[in-house]
Amino acid sequence: MDTSTPASGHSEPPARRRTGGRSARVRAQVLDAVGVLLVEGGYDALTVDAVAERAGVHRTTVYRRWRDVGGLLADVLDAAAADDTWSPPDTGSLEGDLTALNQEVYDALAAGPSVSTALIAASFRSPEAAGALARFWADRYERCAAVVSRAVARGDLGAATDAHALLVTATAPLYHVLLLLRDEPDPGLPRRAATAAAAAARAGAFAARDTAPGGAGP
Amino acid sequence: MDTSTPASGHSEPPARRRTGGRSARVRAQVLDAVGVLLVEGGYDALTVDAVAERAGVHRTTVYRRWRDVGGLLADVLDAAAADDTWSPPDTGSLEGDLTALNQEVYDALAAGPSVSTALIAASFRSPEAAGALARFWADRYERCAAVVSRAVARGDLGAATDAHALLVTATAPLYHVLLLLRDEPDPGLPRRAATAAAAAARAGAFAARDTAPGGAGP
Repeated sequence: MDTSTPASGHSEPPARRRTGGRSARVRAQVLDAVGVLLVEGGYDALTVDAVAERAGVHRTTVYRRWRDVGGLLADVLDAAAADDTWSPPDTGSLEGDLTALNQEVYDALAAGPSVSTALIAASFRSPEAAGALARFWADRYERCAAVVSRAVARGDLGAATDAHALLVTATAPLYHVLLLLRDEPDPGLPRRAATAAAAAARAGAFAARDTAPGGAGP
Repeated sequence: MDTSTPASGHSEPPARRRTGGRSARVRAQVLDAVGVLLVEGGYDALTVDAVAERAGVHRTTVYRRWRDVGGLLADVLDAAAADDTWSPPDTGSLEGDLTALNQEVYDALAAGPSVSTALIAASFRSPEAAGALARFWADRYERCAAVVSRAVARGDLGAATDAHALLVTATAPLYHVLLLLRDEPDPGLPRRAATAAAAAARAGAFAARDTAPGGAGP
């Protein structure tokens, strides 16, 4: 769930198919520069020219490949989403897995200015960043469904548990408290939010609606 | 929990003490104009001059009283926070109260461009707006503690329930799903998030730490 590590492992970026390693290197340099500038000065510091200069890449290269700031932000997030090395922690228990996930979110959001917070702030100004952020989170929540299916396999949760609803409930307080309420970071929050979501799940609060074949809906 | 209604009922704004009704009228006109411009064009549309023009108030009046855009945004939120007519819904049950609260949040966030979403977006750019938004929410969560104390009085929850943690858990998924994940609005979400938080509360997930006198901390 960590958005702080823009990775460059996109499986098939159009340019890479043609030019291989050099193009991937340019992309990594440019996306790193976007992250550095975002953290330093936020969205307002982000211009194609500043990114090109910081990356040591010719500005026409950046304009041609990413077009504008929206294109750059979207690619940072798409690159992070495409990093398929990330998988949810496997600690052996539902509380443990959710706490570890929440700890990643907490570390990304509580650590002063970060790429994560800057990208989220930028998503309120760039529709392309907003779309890419939504895709990024959709991908991460999907991978995290493994946390729930492991709990089901252990007999800890019912098979019909709505994984997405459970995961959103576990993580949402972190975003709300740290990004919107802007409370002082509280190191106990990741575990408390995880414990509450697990308790709600065991009480059946995330029971998926009946999907049995032949079940007639209202 | 609704941030969409900038009210003008601040109990003791400095200017009002001196000039009474006329000053309060000017304030209401100016804050209304801020809301309209925010919804129309977001933070970028908000300048002191545009606000003065829209409000039909001399620009020097706006500069003198609110100084800049940050001062205007902070006053919109402080005015809303000072509207002491708002109180949490009393439906007779914990689930009902939390669902009604969540419905207010949902209505404010799901209805396309709103003052609420614009103020939240602006809080990422104006430290004064961020501070005022934090004060506004602190006030609303404090008033909502009544929802939890009523549940305790009914014998529905233990006396040591941490009201703030429960209320944040109930409302956070609304903000996360609608503002950050930007999912399609789902009318069932207010009730589902309320039900999950209530289930976690009954399972003891929000038991406040021991505050008994003489209890030695670790």
